[in-house]
Amino acid sequence: MSPQLSSTETAELIATAEALADAARRESLRHFRTAGGLAAETKETARFDPVTVADRAAERAMREILAARRPQDGIYGEEYGVIRGESGLTWVLDPIDGTRGYMSGTPTWGVLVALSEETAEGPGQPLLGVIDQPYIGERFVGGFGAAQVTGPLGRAALAVRAPRKLSDAILFSTFPEVGTAEEGEAFARLSREVKLTRYGTDCYAYALIAAGQIDLVVEAGLQPYDVGAPIAVIEAAGGVVTDWQGGPAWRGGRVLAAANPEIHAAAMAVLNA
Amino acid sequence: MSPQLSSTETAELIATAEALADAARRESLRHFRTAGGLAAETKETARFDPVTVADRAAERAMREILAARRPQDGIYGEEYGVIRGESGLTWVLDPIDGTRGYMSGTPTWGVLVALSEETAEGPGQPLLGVIDQPYIGERFVGGFGAAQVTGPLGRAALAVRAPRKLSDAILFSTFPEVGTAEEGEAFARLSREVKLTRYGTDCYAYALIAAGQIDLVVEAGLQPYDVGAPIAVIEAAGGVVTDWQGGPAWRGGRVLAAANPEIHAAAMAVLNA
Repeated sequence: MSPQLSSTETAELIATAEALADAARRESLRHFRTAGGLAAETKETARFDPVTVADRAAERAMREILAARRPQDGIYGEEYGVIRGESGLTWVLDPIDGTRGYMSGTPTWGVLVALSEETAEGPGQPLLGVIDQPYIGERFVGGFGAAQVTGPLGRAALAVRAPRKLSDAILFSTFPEVGTAEEGEAFARLSREVKLTRYGTDCYAYALIAAGQIDLVVEAGLQPYDVGAPIAVIEAAGGVVTDWQGGPAWRGGRVLAAANPEIHAAAMAVLNA
Repeated sequence: MSPQLSSTETAELIATAEALADAARRESLRHFRTAGGLAAETKETARFDPVTVADRAAERAMREILAARRPQDGIYGEEYGVIRGESGLTWVLDPIDGTRGYMSGTPTWGVLVALSEETAEGPGQPLLGVIDQPYIGERFVGGFGAAQVTGPLGRAALAVRAPRKLSDAILFSTFPEVGTAEEGEAFARLSREVKLTRYGTDCYAYALIAAGQIDLVVEAGLQPYDVGAPIAVIEAAGGVVTDWQGGPAWRGGRVLAAANPEIHAAAMAVLNA
């Protein structure tokens, strides 16, 4: 359950989330597009999943800030595991979401910071999220009443698109090979129904839903740290994020993010057809 | 044939190319991510190829600059067709390369400006190119001795990656469905040989070769205005751009862009296997 939070406390939590994103932005940019590239390590040999020096430095920098500012909260991070908290709140950290995009030099990887309810099974409902793209200098924040983007064009409120037919919708996913064979088939079915399918955007696609630019993001095989911030930002902008059955998506796995309940229902029907 | 150009003339040509990109940046950003989105027109009904108000405004702005500064040169533009010149040089303009990315709000579309030799059949060898990403505020320039990027991290020289095995290479293309069935099969064959294949980057992928971040871009069905600027920028950075047979790629069609001659040869062998 979420603790009762005063407006002073939520302001401090938003400031902390931004401080975390600032630190991760600094660390991730330090190594971005450096000459010769990084010697990427591989976490798993079966799957290409590089972990960069920057990824780890950014998470360490964020954990130092939390140790000083929010020692009572839990931490659930991609690189350095889980610390249980005492406040009922936990920080869900993905220092560089889209490491393959990062290594390729694209501007669509991002820093993900979420503050979620802490449950016995791990992070629960996200309350606050930040999606930060360090190279562009762009930040999407949602939760505790905030729903805004700051970046090259200044500051703007986040608001999702109005409902439209699937045949007019724009769908994004990071790779055309979505999940298992069965999941990939469901995705392909949906892709055939929409106007346009685009790939290669990592977490940036979720920000584009919140910014009212696209209608759907569908992915599978995600981790909790991949989805916490996107859920908070999209919900704050008026959108809907669930698993492919309409249940909570906090645990990762299959994720269906939608600009509004209407397009969410239409996409879910096709995924489960 | 290319006219003889003094260093004063090449400096003026670079300044003109930058002025064109400045104007197109201004016009394209005016409509980027505007509330409610643009009512996109469709050039072809069979293929989804939107043309935005911004696309046309940007090309008009560029043509006005050329009328004032370089009336002796030809123009080959996506939106407003061909003007023959008298100087032996022609400006090849794609005001918004990646209109579908633009409409989706991604930061990987771009303004393409090239200065090419003018031939009886249209633009020939590109001599100078600019790839500009207006939202990021990033510009890649190559030709007449220049090979540089300016953007969020300041100014840096462009230089391609060193040769490596195909199995260590990064390959980009805008869509997984590359060209015809036969072309798509050749691309899939190459994709299976490389370490990583990414999609969704429009012209930005060519800039990533010049910046030393990736090894290969393979596309098909391109127009001359899609390739002029990428060829000039990549060649200035030390890379190689040809069609899939190793011939000139100026006319568009099938394009193989590579970081160096070694990876170019390896990729071409697989495409034609």
